[in-house]
Amino acid sequence: MTTVKEIGERKIIEIIRRKLSLPRMPIPFGDDVSGVKLGDNQIAVLKTDMLVGKTDVPPGMSFWQVGRKAVVMNVSDFAAKGVKPIALLAALGVPSAFLKKNVVQLANGLSAGAREHGAYVLGGDTGEASDLVVSCSLFGLSERRLIPLRSGARAGDIVAVTGFFGKSVAGLKLLLERASSSSTVSRKIFLDAVLLPKARLREGFALAQSRAVSASIDSSDGLAWSLYEISRASHAGFLIDHLPVAPEVLRFAQRNKLDPLELALYGGEEYELVLTIKPKLWQRALHAVEQVGGRLLRIGTVTKKTEMILRWNGKSVVIEPRGWEHFRRRG
Amino acid sequence: MTTVKEIGERKIIEIIRRKLSLPRMPIPFGDDVSGVKLGDNQIAVLKTDMLVGKTDVPPGMSFWQVGRKAVVMNVSDFAAKGVKPIALLAALGVPSAFLKKNVVQLANGLSAGAREHGAYVLGGDTGEASDLVVSCSLFGLSERRLIPLRSGARAGDIVAVTGFFGKSVAGLKLLLERASSSSTVSRKIFLDAVLLPKARLREGFALAQSRAVSASIDSSDGLAWSLYEISRASHAGFLIDHLPVAPEVLRFAQRNKLDPLELALYGGEEYELVLTIKPKLWQRALHAVEQVGGRLLRIGTVTKKTEMILRWNGKSVVIEPRGWEHFRRRG
Repeated sequence: MTTVKEIGERKIIEIIRRKLSLPRMPIPFGDDVSGVKLGDNQIAVLKTDMLVGKTDVPPGMSFWQVGRKAVVMNVSDFAAKGVKPIALLAALGVPSAFLKKNVVQLANGLSAGAREHGAYVLGGDTGEASDLVVSCSLFGLSERRLIPLRSGARAGDIVAVTGFFGKSVAGLKLLLERASSSSTVSRKIFLDAVLLPKARLREGFALAQSRAVSASIDSSDGLAWSLYEISRASHAGFLIDHLPVAPEVLRFAQRNKLDPLELALYGGEEYELVLTIKPKLWQRALHAVEQVGGRLLRIGTVTKKTEMILRWNGKSVVIEPRGWEHFRRRG
Repeated sequence: MTTVKEIGERKIIEIIRRKLSLPRMPIPFGDDVSGVKLGDNQIAVLKTDMLVGKTDVPPGMSFWQVGRKAVVMNVSDFAAKGVKPIALLAALGVPSAFLKKNVVQLANGLSAGAREHGAYVLGGDTGEASDLVVSCSLFGLSERRLIPLRSGARAGDIVAVTGFFGKSVAGLKLLLERASSSSTVSRKIFLDAVLLPKARLREGFALAQSRAVSASIDSSDGLAWSLYEISRASHAGFLIDHLPVAPEVLRFAQRNKLDPLELALYGGEEYELVLTIKPKLWQRALHAVEQVGGRLLRIGTVTKKTEMILRWNGKSVVIEPRGWEHFRRRG
């Protein structure tokens, strides 16, 4: 009989969606967040995302960092939709031999993660589980017209991201494999990307307010996968002519004989935003992000044909529909 | 070093609470639900509760029932506060060998549980975990003045419950131990209490609307524990003179040489509401519950002294502060 391992996370979500009776929703099922209409154009925005020790906690991560990461995973989806979180609830499952001092660290990390993004931990639940499990749920408010969906990309729109890619996967390779970095500076950059990920909340909020964004998603499953998600939802393709590989990642790839494309496109655990911007409003978008101290990198163009092409070193290659997926390792 | 097993769930929650920086909240931390003020007296009501296969799924429970129970656990807390759920998000953690058909059952159970209470499953998350974990979060709307807290009980108030106790623990003893029941009817009653628990949403909503309730809590940690929680929050005591033991439970206790008091007071997994009612409004409360086809059983009185006394068979005994607690078995 078929197991979840054989079908993979995305198929499972598809199976579940088909079993649900769904109402009219201001934000479609499967987008980064869910929404409930409150009247007066206001929308209650909801998100839940579960951190599991086994798959989401690399060696070397402190429990404070675990708590904070569980928050960042959720805030990143709010960031993609330009919504500031107000309240966070956390359900903890911990093994019975888990140490009290680690609970304290975890709680401090949860609280710090929430406060860092302007939210408060208002409640939660605790119980026994075999793995460490931290399931957060977020609540916020926005207006429907201010929320960019995954489905709004149109041919001619500019594709942009809020930062460079490949640092998290480099960090994971430092922690999990025997990769090495060329300098202590780049080592710190890579480890910080894994252990202290940043949700691009200020950027996402400023961009949503600018109304220049036609589609948006966070990149927690990798850049390639995020582009495919927008492509599927928007029925459009992409020509990526400026792959945003971090310069340190290029050096790291060379040193460890790795493919920099692989690192930048298919690594998960990235928390940059992937956006499409209306070309006439590009300057406005750029200005909005710069105002909050962020970066907006133009990486390509939305195309009518639903192809996914990367120009790299004078050649054209097809970006593959893969990335980080639970139950399956890359592939 | 101290483990969570040694300190128990309630102490863990207390430790976590001390680590949080809390804002002004319309509903205090540690009550059945959390709240965020929306203006115009409206409150966004939030709850998260995690079902873990290891501790919350008895043998004989189908995956449909598991999905539904994960919803009921959350709805029961909304019921205690008189709030109708609108949206539910579910984060699933499943072992990689979990069968696809069981995911389908689980999704059907989640959806059925939500629809049964007027809510919809709007989104969620799926990942790999060692245990089956179903972490639900609920969203609803209410008004602050309509939400009974745990802290409002006053001396002279009537203590009431929405049904009889002891059936769930009897059901668990049928499933887990070698207990037997005297009839197929009572066997079905006990098993249904465990496998198809009912959240008292209609009763809780009607009671909150009646404004007759001074304090309220659900009884998922057992009747004794629920009384102690109200006692602690309200700085009051209880005299319980009509212990609501289900008649089938009295027979079951006799047959299996068990103490019916133990079954009714200290068993967990009950989903009745435990309430205190302003005495002048008792008839109004009774009427409100009867209107929705429910039951309201008067079981005692709130006292000024913070004692917890039970009158039973002409004797007075002290109710102990114990009940179901994660990480600890009874006691």
